[in-house]
Amino acid sequence: MRIDAALIERRLDELYAIGAQPDGGAYRPLYGAAWAAAGERVERWMKDAGLKTYRDAVGNIWGRAGGDGKSIVTGSHIDTVRHGGRLDGALGIVAGLTAVESLRKAKGKPRRPLEVVAICEEEGSRFATSFWGSRAIIGAIDKPDAEIAAAMRERGLDPTTIASAARDDIDTFVELHIEQGRVLESARTPLAVVSAIVGTAHLEVTVTGQPDHAGTTPMDLRRDALAGAAAMVQAVESIAKSLGKPAVATVGKLNVEPAQINVVPGTVVFTVDLRHADLGGRRALEERIRSLCGTISEERRLGLAIRTLQEKAPVAMHAEVRALLARAAKDCGVQATDMVSGAGHDAQILAARCKVGMLFVPSIGGRSHCPEEATSPEHLLLGTKVLTKSLELLAY
Amino acid sequence: MRIDAALIERRLDELYAIGAQPDGGAYRPLYGAAWAAAGERVERWMKDAGLKTYRDAVGNIWGRAGGDGKSIVTGSHIDTVRHGGRLDGALGIVAGLTAVESLRKAKGKPRRPLEVVAICEEEGSRFATSFWGSRAIIGAIDKPDAEIAAAMRERGLDPTTIASAARDDIDTFVELHIEQGRVLESARTPLAVVSAIVGTAHLEVTVTGQPDHAGTTPMDLRRDALAGAAAMVQAVESIAKSLGKPAVATVGKLNVEPAQINVVPGTVVFTVDLRHADLGGRRALEERIRSLCGTISEERRLGLAIRTLQEKAPVAMHAEVRALLARAAKDCGVQATDMVSGAGHDAQILAARCKVGMLFVPSIGGRSHCPEEATSPEHLLLGTKVLTKSLELLAY
Repeated sequence: MRIDAALIERRLDELYAIGAQPDGGAYRPLYGAAWAAAGERVERWMKDAGLKTYRDAVGNIWGRAGGDGKSIVTGSHIDTVRHGGRLDGALGIVAGLTAVESLRKAKGKPRRPLEVVAICEEEGSRFATSFWGSRAIIGAIDKPDAEIAAAMRERGLDPTTIASAARDDIDTFVELHIEQGRVLESARTPLAVVSAIVGTAHLEVTVTGQPDHAGTTPMDLRRDALAGAAAMVQAVESIAKSLGKPAVATVGKLNVEPAQINVVPGTVVFTVDLRHADLGGRRALEERIRSLCGTISEERRLGLAIRTLQEKAPVAMHAEVRALLARAAKDCGVQATDMVSGAGHDAQILAARCKVGMLFVPSIGGRSHCPEEATSPEHLLLGTKVLTKSLELLAY
Repeated sequence: MRIDAALIERRLDELYAIGAQPDGGAYRPLYGAAWAAAGERVERWMKDAGLKTYRDAVGNIWGRAGGDGKSIVTGSHIDTVRHGGRLDGALGIVAGLTAVESLRKAKGKPRRPLEVVAICEEEGSRFATSFWGSRAIIGAIDKPDAEIAAAMRERGLDPTTIASAARDDIDTFVELHIEQGRVLESARTPLAVVSAIVGTAHLEVTVTGQPDHAGTTPMDLRRDALAGAAAMVQAVESIAKSLGKPAVATVGKLNVEPAQINVVPGTVVFTVDLRHADLGGRRALEERIRSLCGTISEERRLGLAIRTLQEKAPVAMHAEVRALLARAAKDCGVQATDMVSGAGHDAQILAARCKVGMLFVPSIGGRSHCPEEATSPEHLLLGTKVLTKSLELLAY
């Protein structure tokens, strides 16, 4: 089947221009002006492709082609982080739309309903929420907070009707996304079928020592919160390494008090982001980190408090969908690799209500959430081809 | 000789009340209103004690009692850090004045000129300068910057006459100061004769890695600037420990970029404050730290840049003065210990032009530069007694 590679690139360019920032990248926050303009553009493309469109209560945009029974859905989110790149989210929408369009041209009306969706929000792009669109689709939003409700009303959406966005008639959701890491590039592999989306825990660790004069306090009389925290940062890294892939653990933020050049640090607060593809692994990682931080703080007579900021369980992709995606890749002449997604995606939410699967294409240099985010045109085309084949296998 | 312990405490209370901050401690920044009020109070005490007072070009306040030849001087600085304590600087002025007053009452006119000085600035309390008063006394100030000059004029001082503050007629400067650390308290020693003031170097270390997604970047593909910096912080601590006393090294500030919970740190900038009583030791400390940071950055494929922000050579106290202070302590029935000062003091500046020596009394809990700064009344009295005896040995 012919896929128009130039059309994919053109549509990606068009979306990327909406919400372009003066200092690089695009920003399309939920219910903002750029978000609304991007939605209108996508809806017009859907209509031009002959799809029946509708918007649900939270502003997810759906484009549907005939058939009976439960739907086969593809798509991604339309919002972006600040200074976001050209592909995160946008690729899933553009590739999904182009795939459905190509299928309808070549094969006519699908046997089952085939839908493309532009999900309104996934990134936490504006409010203290994320997966807003997919959570609405599974009926998991009780009531929006006042700030989000006001923003919805400004866009002509009625926050009292959110429950109506829930769907129980989706059979399968498949999404093409960029990897956002360097695994595929390093392995020179053009395509992956995602096996699971990692579970994440965010911890906040507070280390308390004693602030002292850096000149008048001998080394043996110190209780240096930063020296202790540094030992813990080292421990976080070595525990993740020793547990092996796909365990990762990251200290991304670290604040020192009183932060004076000539004062021994009295307090350090740092965060730990830890991820694993299965819950047992994630818990083992967390347990070892907590235990070693405890040992370090005792040895150094430091205070220690560890608070869980957030916990998300790992989500396995559906075995049938994984097999189907792998078969579609093979049909396109590619041996896809299996990989765990270290980042979160709407599929992990939608998995509560339907079968889910994802395809990854390589990210150049692993860059994402930045203007440098890029994937080679041949990889974009290959991903779209395999997505098209998958939708054909599912809906025709 | 009788020393009025209650008078010492009362004078310390009076000074501490000047510049009292609503949220604790006192603040008497150079040429500020509280600074001026404190100076007037000290000058009145000097006059009441029968001393001839004068102010030099930068606002150091001198109180002099007769005699011929080069002067014996005691005193300390009158400025404070923000939220400063009751004793840092203030003790040296109050004890010096009380000592001279007691000597004149008991022994009459000294053989040599005996002076008490309230040095205008030492702490870096207001401007990007420190040791302002003592640097003027040794003739080391060329020209004040515009901001300081303006502040001087507001206090009726003429910045074009700073050179006139230089003195070449001081024989010996002795100062009583609080230790500002926990060494004496830990050793249950009531008094120390300072052997040297440490040399200090301040380094700024920049570690450059690569910012990456905390979920999508496996541990083996990372160049984590914070994990590297943590290894360096550990190295700084262990090198200082292994070199032994009086080496100290402190990482007091550490900033992470981009400081997001789910992003591998791309850049870390931290400071190192390192001190030693002799220049060879200070250099060895710095060399080992630089070398180990280099090794760590190479092993981890991180960029490394180390910049020297400041360097001060160690200053030995004068051997004759040390011996005299020790003898005075013995005469007062105390075996003083020798110790290195980890903090800077005016004596390290004045050493360029005269013999210098210092006495330390214990700081409770080692606290200093904060409202909790305290020394027991008996230690304050003992320190003043030994200072008085020293001045008697020097000037009578």
